[in-house]
Amino acid sequence: MNTTQRPRVIIIGAGFGGLYAAQTLAGKAVDVLLIDRQNYHTFTPLLYQVATCALDPSDIAYPIRQIFAHKRNVHVLMGQVDGIDNEARTISVQLADRRVTEPYDYLIVAAGSVTNYFGNDTVERLSFPLKELDDAIILRNHILQQFEKASSSTDAAERGALTTLVVVGGGPTGIETAGALHELYNYVLRNDFPELARAQVILVEAVDRLLMPYPQKLQQSALDQLRSLGVQVILKMSVTDVGEGYVRLADGQEIATHTLVWAAGTKGAPAAQLLDLPLQRSGRVPVRPTMEVIDRERIYVVGDMAYLEDPQGNPYPMLIPVAKQEGMLAARNILRRISGQAEESFAYHDRGIMATIGRSRAVAWIYNRVPLTGYIAWVAWLFLHLLWLLGFRNRLSVLINWVWNYLTYDRSVRLILPASRRMTTRANLPQER
Amino acid sequence: MNTTQRPRVIIIGAGFGGLYAAQTLAGKAVDVLLIDRQNYHTFTPLLYQVATCALDPSDIAYPIRQIFAHKRNVHVLMGQVDGIDNEARTISVQLADRRVTEPYDYLIVAAGSVTNYFGNDTVERLSFPLKELDDAIILRNHILQQFEKASSSTDAAERGALTTLVVVGGGPTGIETAGALHELYNYVLRNDFPELARAQVILVEAVDRLLMPYPQKLQQSALDQLRSLGVQVILKMSVTDVGEGYVRLADGQEIATHTLVWAAGTKGAPAAQLLDLPLQRSGRVPVRPTMEVIDRERIYVVGDMAYLEDPQGNPYPMLIPVAKQEGMLAARNILRRISGQAEESFAYHDRGIMATIGRSRAVAWIYNRVPLTGYIAWVAWLFLHLLWLLGFRNRLSVLINWVWNYLTYDRSVRLILPASRRMTTRANLPQER
Repeated sequence: MNTTQRPRVIIIGAGFGGLYAAQTLAGKAVDVLLIDRQNYHTFTPLLYQVATCALDPSDIAYPIRQIFAHKRNVHVLMGQVDGIDNEARTISVQLADRRVTEPYDYLIVAAGSVTNYFGNDTVERLSFPLKELDDAIILRNHILQQFEKASSSTDAAERGALTTLVVVGGGPTGIETAGALHELYNYVLRNDFPELARAQVILVEAVDRLLMPYPQKLQQSALDQLRSLGVQVILKMSVTDVGEGYVRLADGQEIATHTLVWAAGTKGAPAAQLLDLPLQRSGRVPVRPTMEVIDRERIYVVGDMAYLEDPQGNPYPMLIPVAKQEGMLAARNILRRISGQAEESFAYHDRGIMATIGRSRAVAWIYNRVPLTGYIAWVAWLFLHLLWLLGFRNRLSVLINWVWNYLTYDRSVRLILPASRRMTTRANLPQER
Repeated sequence: MNTTQRPRVIIIGAGFGGLYAAQTLAGKAVDVLLIDRQNYHTFTPLLYQVATCALDPSDIAYPIRQIFAHKRNVHVLMGQVDGIDNEARTISVQLADRRVTEPYDYLIVAAGSVTNYFGNDTVERLSFPLKELDDAIILRNHILQQFEKASSSTDAAERGALTTLVVVGGGPTGIETAGALHELYNYVLRNDFPELARAQVILVEAVDRLLMPYPQKLQQSALDQLRSLGVQVILKMSVTDVGEGYVRLADGQEIATHTLVWAAGTKGAPAAQLLDLPLQRSGRVPVRPTMEVIDRERIYVVGDMAYLEDPQGNPYPMLIPVAKQEGMLAARNILRRISGQAEESFAYHDRGIMATIGRSRAVAWIYNRVPLTGYIAWVAWLFLHLLWLLGFRNRLSVLINWVWNYLTYDRSVRLILPASRRMTTRANLPQER
């Protein structure tokens, strides 16, 4: 039990849902404990730019403690939550060197989503996801290594496989990654490795169009822009198998490659299972319109993990604005409840969706009413993403990198780093230094 | 045997010695193969700033292929040289996925130096070196993790050990690291972790003064500046033992700590042993004044690996300007030899030495004649290091980070990254992706 005077709110996850919940509670008459596995918040929309050498990891990551440095009622803990006791109102957290139990009065679970391999273990083992900062660094290292290997290979078929990059999934992540990979080759790696005559980026999508929720005109535009860039797009095709050096498609075609980027789906984070409740589609937790979990008193779930239907009966999508607004609502509802007021229901303020495809190429669907394509959509995308980044220093750094990349056609951050051998050695030390 | 028309020069190592040798040979009538274990050149003087969250890894690393992108006679290979066959004039290189043998007409070995633990395996296993970019990232992760652990500890002694950082070695690396660690705590971590009342940085040096090659006045100034900053300096004391949670000094004193930064010495890289020759002090390869190895025809050794005495009979120090000038001389001598001219002997142009201690604190010994201390030495240090950095983008990025850090007292790059668990998983994949 919590013995302090002020109600204690624990927030699990410092993604967009958890972060905005904590910011809403900062300075209010509650004690907040914000828990995340990392010591930083990641601006996930730009992960693909880290993976393709355009940005530094620190450009899109922001130390969580810094965000709340002057908010005395928000405390930060780095650890992995591995238990929720609904009866005792406690959670257990695995820290680096110990396990602790923390009591709560209210709990906000905002652990986000993970890559969905749809049960295919081989794909999980052999493909590269792009959900976290680590993923982006690992993918960057891998791609650069493929080109290093290709440059010292004398076998044409092997060179071809090493310089063929396959991206699965025609959503924003897949499209943006495919476009950026092609530009990385076209503007940079082609100069670094003049001996490599070509590289191929292939985007595979299971349905007959890209960017499912967009209007048809924008879907077509995205497809045209990707193809004009040089990306090979294969629609209505699924990946049935992947192995060492190949990807097999549903029509039997085998693509020789060592790089399969898996952007084909996400599902609620495994933390959803800690609630011991039947889950909805994609492993999401059903919640009431107040964001409180059905049958779990004082526990709120927000963001990608939460399953809530809009007035048309469709689940709210796994998008950052949804997570932000749900996080803020859960926090406000907790404050209302503490002060004896009625809770509010979720009403999504949808300002639209956008995806970038490459230099001067993008699509945007502003307020789900105004369609933009090409240069103007791209400028809007750049401007809004700069605005959404946390912290002046990160904005400045990203802006400079973008201007630099735009003017020089360069990607400066193409480092293979750190050597996994060294990390392994250090991680294997008995005292886990 | 090399069958091409133009003589082939292989350079092992893209540190300062190898890089300047390659630049001297670029555009000349030779074929150059530059080999390094990494795909980037590291600006080592600023490693400690990466370790202390002031700079991004990419700020001080520069892709080697980019440097030589427009130099058609310079080829780059990423791999580890593991054999030199002096008779056959070939070297063998371990690449990521195969082993290759490369023929040379002339060889420049510039593999640099490694941390010297003086045979103490326990120190090697339990301490943190600071010689490579990986080291800096590992140390940064470790220090931030110590503070995370301390913040969730309720044991005062444990907290003290976790927030005590010991640096061994009173040379430039040790001094700069100790100063920067203290500022990291004082300006940043103290705000991030308000629950941690103090941290302690201890610098241990075996002799009775810091910065051995400097004049006494500057040695004293460095000591005074470090102490005024808050670093505890222990002179005339060696570390005799290290274990889990402690460092033992020669007088029996035990310092409770989990962080021992080892900056107490360097020695020639293990590649020196590939020459199968008796080595000089600190594992360095004796060379003639032309930089050619004694008894090894057509093999030149430059930089930290080379042992050459100055006119006073002292070996040239392991310093960047020495490596640069030796690298350029070896390259020029190879060109002279090819064109039938007499080779030249090494003559060191010494422009002085400098070390920074912290914000507005530094010592400099310009042209070994003009001593500078404090603010003016610090400004000179900043200016010259910016100038020495390779590439406009890196200069701009470092300048912005420095101005940012100076104005805000902030260190933005405090990310614990990447999770070694993930790197390990990926590294352990059977196909070594």
